[in-house]
Order: sequence, then C-alpha cells, then structure tokens
Amino acid sequence: MRLAKPIRKLIESFEKLPGIGPKTAARLTFYLLHVPESQLEEFALALSNLKKETVLCSICFNISETDPCPVCMDQSRQKELVCVVEQPLDILAIEKTGNFSGTYHVLHGAISPLNNIGPDEIYLKPLLDRVKNNNLAEIILATNPNMEGEATAMFIKKSIGGINEKVKVTRLAHGLPVGSDLEYADEVTLSRAIEGRKEY
Amino acid sequence: MRLAKPIRKLIESFEKLPGIGPKTAARLTFYLLHVPESQLEEFALALSNLKKETVLCSICFNISETDPCPVCMDQSRQKELVCVVEQPLDILAIEKTGNFSGTYHVLHGAISPLNNIGPDEIYLKPLLDRVKNNNLAEIILATNPNMEGEATAMFIKKSIGGINEKVKVTRLAHGLPVGSDLEYADEVTLSRAIEGRKEY
Repeated sequence: MRLAKPIRKLIESFEKLPGIGPKTAARLTFYLLHVPESQLEEFALALSNLKKETVLCSICFNISETDPCPVCMDQSRQKELVCVVEQPLDILAIEKTGNFSGTYHVLHGAISPLNNIGPDEIYLKPLLDRVKNNNLAEIILATNPNMEGEATAMFIKKSIGGINEKVKVTRLAHGLPVGSDLEYADEVTLSRAIEGRKEY
Repeated sequence: MRLAKPIRKLIESFEKLPGIGPKTAARLTFYLLHVPESQLEEFALALSNLKKETVLCSICFNISETDPCPVCMDQSRQKELVCVVEQPLDILAIEKTGNFSGTYHVLHGAISPLNNIGPDEIYLKPLLDRVKNNNLAEIILATNPNMEGEATAMFIKKSIGGINEKVKVTRLAHGLPVGSDLEYADEVTLSRAIEGRKEY
C-alpha cells in the first residue's frame, strides 16, 4: 500500500526542513489531517507570503517589511554604532537583551571555505561601503564564536583596517556563560575567561 | 524591535504543530527565507491540498484519494480478516511488515475518558456495522499497547461479542521487542513475554 499522493507530497515538503526526518514529517502531516481546514489555509498563506511580503533592508540587510527597516529608520538609535551579525535571528537575540541601542548589519552567513562560501558570498561588501561612506565610531563583530564566525570576524577586522583605521572594531566578550558550572566549562572557554578577567 | 509580520505569522503556524516550540519554529521559518520561492509555493500547495484532495474510505475509514481506498478495492486481500488500528499511520507500519494480507479499520483515536473521548467519538460504530453486515472470520485488535489502547480493545471485544459470537477476536502479541536486551525490559512486558511463551 502506498500513501495517498497529497499526504506523500506534504511529508516530502516537511522532510526538506532541517532537523525533520521521515518519521517526524509523517507525524506532522497526519496531525494536520485533524486540524480545521482554515488552519491549513492560514499556514499555506503564511508560507506563500513569507518571501513575497518581505524585503532586505538596503542599509543593514535585515529582513523586513519596509526598506529601510524599523531599526535603521529609528531616530533614537545610534547610527555610528554598528553590530555585525551572521543571521537575522541573531538580531532578535541581541534586541532581547535590551542592552544595545546601535544599528545592525546582517552578513547572511559566515566565511566557510569548506562549504565554498567566500567573502563575496556573504553581504560583506555593503558593510565595507557603509564604513567608507559613513562616519562610523565603532563596529561590534558579533559573528558566532565558532571557527567560521572567528574567521569571518578576523577577515572583517582586516578589511576595515584597510579602509578606515580610525573606526574602532570590537568583538563580543568570550567567557563563562552566566548560570553555568565552572566544572563543565571547556578549556578554551575557561582560558578565554581567565585572559579576559576584570577588576572586581 | 519586532519581527516582520510575515515572519511572525509563519512562526505562529509552525508553533501550533506538536513537538515544535518557539525556537524550532523560528529556526524553520528563517531557514525557509533562504529556499527558492518555488519550494515555498510547493509546500503551501501541499498544505492546502492535504484535506481537499483526500477522503475517508467509507469501508475502512482510512485516509485515501479514492473511496473505497486501494486496500479495500484490492481483490487479492482477504476481506474476512480485519485489522483494527487507531491511526492511519499504524496501517503504514503494518503494511511495512509485508506480513498481513487482510483489510483494515481505522478508529481515528482510542477511548480515553480523561480526554472526554468515549466510544461515540471514534469510528467504532461503523466497525460494529461491518461485523453485523459481513461474514467476517477474524478481527485483529491492533490498538496501541497502552492504557487507552487496551481499554479500547477490551470495549471492542465486548461489543463484538454482543453482535456476533462466532467471529474470532485476536489481539497483537505482547512480548520482548526483537533486538532488545532482557535486562532493560520492564516488568509488565517481561511478565507478558513469560505468559505468552511458545514451544521452541
């Protein structure tokens, strides 16, 4: 026996999502068979509107309904302070802290030679143009603290140095996560925490 | 900063699915921002066609494109042997064994008084009608081996007994799963395995 085609089609669509295997895809599909048709239609509409109704902000390249995005249009934010992140979701994480009043730049990726992603495959040139054409005070490199993120941060630091030596380039602090156990910290994190110790 | 509305809408839709929390919903949504628009449209179409293009088979109540479903129409299957399952996915599991040549009946649930699901909330009456109007030889109760499934099986056994005493009612065997460790088997399973031991 084969599954009905509409069911197979939806399972296939779910399977293409990251972290969703054949079993989960089937479970989600059969769950959806029991929801009201209006909820299915809403879901379908949300999917089909996702890209149609969003644009990239031409200043910070965040995904937004408007161009420029609300953050870039906000007069109360410090335009001379730019935080560079890999993904739009990273902006959300930083905004949640309530501790940053500058603007952003989204790279939409990180340099990763193993995956054939070089500096030209991410939105790096617009950042360098922004450094060239604006009087920026500080650029915070908030790429992920992994190999690709570090390499990207290093590359950006060097590139900015070649354009404008006066702009300050900073990197998010490494150290122990709040609420964690010293015992479980890995060596690299702990050694960075020691290096970066502060007067108490 | 708030997320763009089309993004929020899709995150909300994903969050309604079982086992998908706010973080996973956001991750899936941001992943979909990077896929080609055609894939999004395909996904949306699959969702909106899911219920439009499927019906319940009027004989076994499985979800199918046609009524009767392919299994009920298949002349090579034993019509007098009916396997009762809770969900359409269970049929798939049984079909994968390649060890069953009868037909099915899908209850679309199990009796669960705690969740206000009684015998009238599941497709039980059509099964009893089927017993009444057809000359069935055997009914295999393949509801889940948990509390609700057992209660449902018990209830069906009793109901069928009141209609037709000649039809044989069987239940899937309980015992050790193949490939498992005796050491890790729970007491109930092990005690059922001892009760159900077979000559070797």
